[in-house]
This record gives sequence, C-alpha cells and structure tokens, in this order.
Amino acid sequence: MHASISVSPDPSVQYLLRIGDTCLLAAQRLAEWCGHAPMLEEDIALSNMALDLVGQARAVLTRAGRLEAELGGAMHDEDQLAFLRDERDFRNLTLAELPRGDFAVTVLRNFALATFFKLLWTKLERSSDAELAGIAGKALKEARYHQEHAGDWLVRLGDGNEESARRLHAAADLLWPYMAEIFESDAVDEAALASGLGPRWADLQADWRAELDAVASAARLMLPAERSFRSTGKSGRHSEHLGYILAEMQQLQRTFPGGTW
Amino acid sequence: MHASISVSPDPSVQYLLRIGDTCLLAAQRLAEWCGHAPMLEEDIALSNMALDLVGQARAVLTRAGRLEAELGGAMHDEDQLAFLRDERDFRNLTLAELPRGDFAVTVLRNFALATFFKLLWTKLERSSDAELAGIAGKALKEARYHQEHAGDWLVRLGDGNEESARRLHAAADLLWPYMAEIFESDAVDEAALASGLGPRWADLQADWRAELDAVASAARLMLPAERSFRSTGKSGRHSEHLGYILAEMQQLQRTFPGGTW
Repeated sequence: MHASISVSPDPSVQYLLRIGDTCLLAAQRLAEWCGHAPMLEEDIALSNMALDLVGQARAVLTRAGRLEAELGGAMHDEDQLAFLRDERDFRNLTLAELPRGDFAVTVLRNFALATFFKLLWTKLERSSDAELAGIAGKALKEARYHQEHAGDWLVRLGDGNEESARRLHAAADLLWPYMAEIFESDAVDEAALASGLGPRWADLQADWRAELDAVASAARLMLPAERSFRSTGKSGRHSEHLGYILAEMQQLQRTFPGGTW
Repeated sequence: MHASISVSPDPSVQYLLRIGDTCLLAAQRLAEWCGHAPMLEEDIALSNMALDLVGQARAVLTRAGRLEAELGGAMHDEDQLAFLRDERDFRNLTLAELPRGDFAVTVLRNFALATFFKLLWTKLERSSDAELAGIAGKALKEARYHQEHAGDWLVRLGDGNEESARRLHAAADLLWPYMAEIFESDAVDEAALASGLGPRWADLQADWRAELDAVASAARLMLPAERSFRSTGKSGRHSEHLGYILAEMQQLQRTFPGGTW
C-alpha cells in the first residue's frame, strides 16, 4: 500500500481543495450512472457531465498542488491529491459524496451544485490567481449547461406524474439538510476574499436561492424548511459514505503505486 | 417487469445488431473503469471511448429498429432494443462481453476491437444503406483514435517492466480464443455482402491480423497460437457473463417501463 500524503493547511490551498474535491466527488457519483441510466441518451448526458467535472477537478487539484510548492511545501500532482489523501484530508461538500440515490436525487443534486458552481465560476473568472481564472472560464460554460439540463429534468419530474413528483419531493427532503453547508463561510473563505483568490461562498447564497426558488416553482416543488443541522465535509468531517467511495476510487493506485493497473 | 421484445430474424437486421450490440457491450465494460482507472487522465480517456461506443450503438440500433419496420415488422427504438431484449437476442461478439479484467486486458481488447471496427467502418462508408454509411463516417474517426490510444498503451505495457509485460501476455492468453469469432462468416454475412449492406467480416481478417502483428512486434508480445475453440455470441449463444451485465443494465428500465428511474 502506498503511504498517504499530507497537504498544506494554507487557506488558499484549502479553498482550492474544497472546489476540486467537490467536483471530483460529484463526478464519481455521476459516473455511477454510467451504464445504468434509464435511457441511452441520458446515460451519455450524465457521463458527459461526470467527465466535465473530472476535468474541472483535475485542473483545480493541479493548481492546488502547484500552489503548495509555491508556498514552500512539497508539490503534489493531481493523481497524488486524488488517490493518496486520506478521508479526513478531503474538503468536498458533504452534498457531493452522498450516494447517487434515484434519478430524482441525482437531478436535484446536479441542479443545486451546478447552480452554485455557475455562480462561483463567474466570480472566479476574476480571481487574482490567473490560472484559476482561466479554469473558471471554461468551467463556467460547462456549469451553465449542467444547470440547464438538470433544471429541465426537475420540471419534467416535478410537473410529471404523481410518482415522479413524489420522488422529487423525497429527494428534496433527503438533500436539503446538506445545502446549508455550501454557504457556511469561515476563515478559509475570508482569506480567499482578502487575497482576491475568490468569493466568500456565503455571498453567493441569495442568488443561488433565487434560482432554486424559480425552478422549484416551475416544478411545483415545495422546498423544505431550513434546519439547524450542518454537514461539515468542507472542513474534513465527512458522512459515512466518503470512506467507501474513496476505498473504491483509491484502491488501484494505492496497491500499485504509480502503476497503470 | 416489462415484457421482452422479439426482433426480426432478417439477416440485415441481424448484421446491424452484431455491430450495435458489440459497441454497446464494449461500452458497458469500458464504463466500468469510470472512477476506477489508475490515473485521472486515463479515467477520462476510457470514459470518452465508452461514450463514443454508446453513441455508435445508439445510431446502429436505431437504424436496425427502423429497418425492422421497413421490412414490415414492428419498429423498435434504441432503448427498446438495448433494454428489452433477452440475452439470447443479443448479437454481440463474445469478446465484448467478457469482464473488464485488469488494465492490460482492457487495452488489448480495445486494440483488437478498435482495429476491427476501423476496418469495418471503412467498408461501411460505402454501404448501400445510406444511413449506415453516414454513421460509419463519424464512427471511423472515433475507431481510429481508439486504436491509436490502445496501441500506444500496448507498447508501453509490453515494452515496460517485467510485471506489465507479464500481465499483457496473460491478457493475450485470456482473450485470444475469442478473436476468431470476429471473422467467422455465415449466412448473415453473405446476405450483407450480396445486398451491399456491408462486408463479409472474414474478408477483414488478413488486414486485422497484419495490424495486430505490427503492434505485437513493437510491444514484444508473442501472440498465442490459433485454437479450435469458437465463441458464438454473434449467433446469440453467450458466455456466462452476459446475463449478469444485462441484468444490471436492464433492471431499471424493466422495472419502471418507459420511466425515468
């Protein structure tokens, strides 16, 4: 087994890991639909979105690893960051690591995340970090498409038949408690705002909520009430699901270090 | 559970199913790498190839279903053909349904299939069926890329270290018995040749073998000797693996007919 790496606690690095890891975990969950979607066309659409998200994860993790070196630490490449970190060093939103669930869960999570990412990448296009700004330009186009695709499905499900509406409401009940974490800001966010690296995520909440409300209204979906529960994936305290998905994702690379198996 | 459909025994339909089903099963097996490849970059490459193959499968199955109607039968769409046929009605090469195995197995199968498809699509560009000819034009470009990508890996593995060469030889021993089926021609092939729908697959064997030999030589891989065993997926008699993969692939659609779950 390959030893784990440890990663710089610098807030800029942590800010990037939150983005890259959320993309990576969301991609993993979407990839689970590969070969299991209810229509071949949708299978392709979900897989393409997974590929976009892996591409974003790679770019952001590559930047995070280089930044570690610029800050005087060891440089890590994208594969080391994806495959050789322990669970507690992942910084993804808990929302992204939850099991894929049924199609309604997938669609609602996609919409929530794509809307958030669209708002985030828009701000990051003006990041003081030129490389991140470049990544954001491409990613923004992808997030827009993801949001549109998921939004169309939300309306079809919510305004479809009784069963599809019931499932969409169940998905909202399941996922809603994990939405608040997106906008919980802390020292990592404050540092990013101060350095111009990127926005405080809390500042994106009002726009995000307005877009959620608009599509929920079109889908005749009542969004659940706010709860006091807060998930904590962004600071490394994860749900019981992350361990399993990382075990699966990292097993090959850790068993055959640097290998091609 | 949704009832199964039965498909026209017309040789032109069967010829198309052999192509579409082989693409579909090869895609399913490649998609299993999604999130499990040893490098993020390769994860994306394999997933993209899977998507190309699903796209080819969709196009060819759509054409097969329309042809059924033109011949006076019921029309089937791509999803019905993919999700509502029983195992014995699948016409893929057995090679395509074998478990994904390790990376060497995947790479060798990809190379063998991509080389075959490159030769097949080249001929199909001049099919008497205009729709198939159109599909072939796009698919040919994709098959060329798949062959190149797999060929590069074959050389890296075969000419790499002792372990990678050992695994590649094991992959060749495992897969070689299933190669002969590709070129076993029968009445379906003869009818396609006669109608101008497409070539007799046997006629592609010499070129295929020459390309295999060339890359095997560069990879320092000794190809196994010909054996008398013949797999029979093209005529619907499959290995023990197809049932499991179809169960997984078809479960959703059969449980919720026409649904989105």
